[in-house]
Amino acid sequence: MSLLRGKLITFEGIDGAGKSTHLAWVADFLQNQGLEVVVTREPGGTVLGEALRELLLDHRQTMHAETEALLMFAARREHLDKVILSALQRGAWVVSDRFTDASFAYQGGGRGVPLAKLEKLEQWCLEDFSPDLTLYFDVPVAISRQRVQAARTTDRFEQESDLFFERVRQAYLQRVAEFPDRIRVVEGSLPLATVKTAVAAIVENFWSAQAKEN
Amino acid sequence: MSLLRGKLITFEGIDGAGKSTHLAWVADFLQNQGLEVVVTREPGGTVLGEALRELLLDHRQTMHAETEALLMFAARREHLDKVILSALQRGAWVVSDRFTDASFAYQGGGRGVPLAKLEKLEQWCLEDFSPDLTLYFDVPVAISRQRVQAARTTDRFEQESDLFFERVRQAYLQRVAEFPDRIRVVEGSLPLATVKTAVAAIVENFWSAQAKEN
Repeated sequence: MSLLRGKLITFEGIDGAGKSTHLAWVADFLQNQGLEVVVTREPGGTVLGEALRELLLDHRQTMHAETEALLMFAARREHLDKVILSALQRGAWVVSDRFTDASFAYQGGGRGVPLAKLEKLEQWCLEDFSPDLTLYFDVPVAISRQRVQAARTTDRFEQESDLFFERVRQAYLQRVAEFPDRIRVVEGSLPLATVKTAVAAIVENFWSAQAKEN
Repeated sequence: MSLLRGKLITFEGIDGAGKSTHLAWVADFLQNQGLEVVVTREPGGTVLGEALRELLLDHRQTMHAETEALLMFAARREHLDKVILSALQRGAWVVSDRFTDASFAYQGGGRGVPLAKLEKLEQWCLEDFSPDLTLYFDVPVAISRQRVQAARTTDRFEQESDLFFERVRQAYLQRVAEFPDRIRVVEGSLPLATVKTAVAAIVENFWSAQAKEN
């Protein structure tokens, strides 16, 4: 990759952790630095990916946990090919609401697909590609549940039990421990302004380091 | 697996090779032996699989070859879980219009996904599961194309070039060479009655061998 290659920043966390609120202004911040910014999400991000998202979130669909993992990675493979790689190659920065860590949290922690098996699938799909920076919004399950239920009709994942989300959270925390340089933890239960300050510090530091490198 | 486990027979070949014509009466033949027979197809076979089939055959969808492979195996994983394994375990025989060999032929030979990479994905999804008998209907591409174009509106695969189908056919023949005990070749370009006699001989021999074993 050339020096002009853009960066991929991913936002991770269970629903109600606050990631979407902060994603929008991080994109604005990066644009204000004069960057082209592509805002995207998973599952989704392409026409095919959005069709798969509908199948995956539809509360009438039941499917084997490994089928769910394969569909998530199919959408991700397409996302990488159609959106992410081409954006990075032309120097744009990509901000994605969830990426590969989410599969380890949801299909691994939540549904019980062995993490070693998910690693094989990730390697099949992404080879050595990985985000440059990940913000993981951590929040106790009870708080995230209150926020989600107050806000909207729930989808197939959001209808899962508290125990499911506790396993998802623990799997996210395991990813944080495994990739301490890439994944930064944001305490999502703190007041909005405090969270914003924390996110700003992380993103501005990352941006400064990149600007210095180039 | 117990002695009562049923058998999976798969029908393979490019469109227009004649497999669907013969699949129906093979199912009848097996039912006449007093077996429960489940007739199914790929991609498809489940509610989710049929939704994925629509995405995969839709001529407006373009997708990366690896995305296509992942979707095919996602549908297959679900097919195995919801239909095939439970049928075999209760002693039913399953007759499927295409199965895993088709991915090696179409996504491998046709689209160029490396066969070693497809083997990894197959192992991820099926572990050591494999059909008990496969009938591969072989036909020159020119003949299959004439038959398909006379019969119906073509889908995303059927609109591919003759060169694509030639690669698919060669990849099927490579599978035949690799699994000579499981895959039997049927010359699909011969007259219908001749093909039927050949298919009947294969299926009746297989059935007799099974009946003797139990």
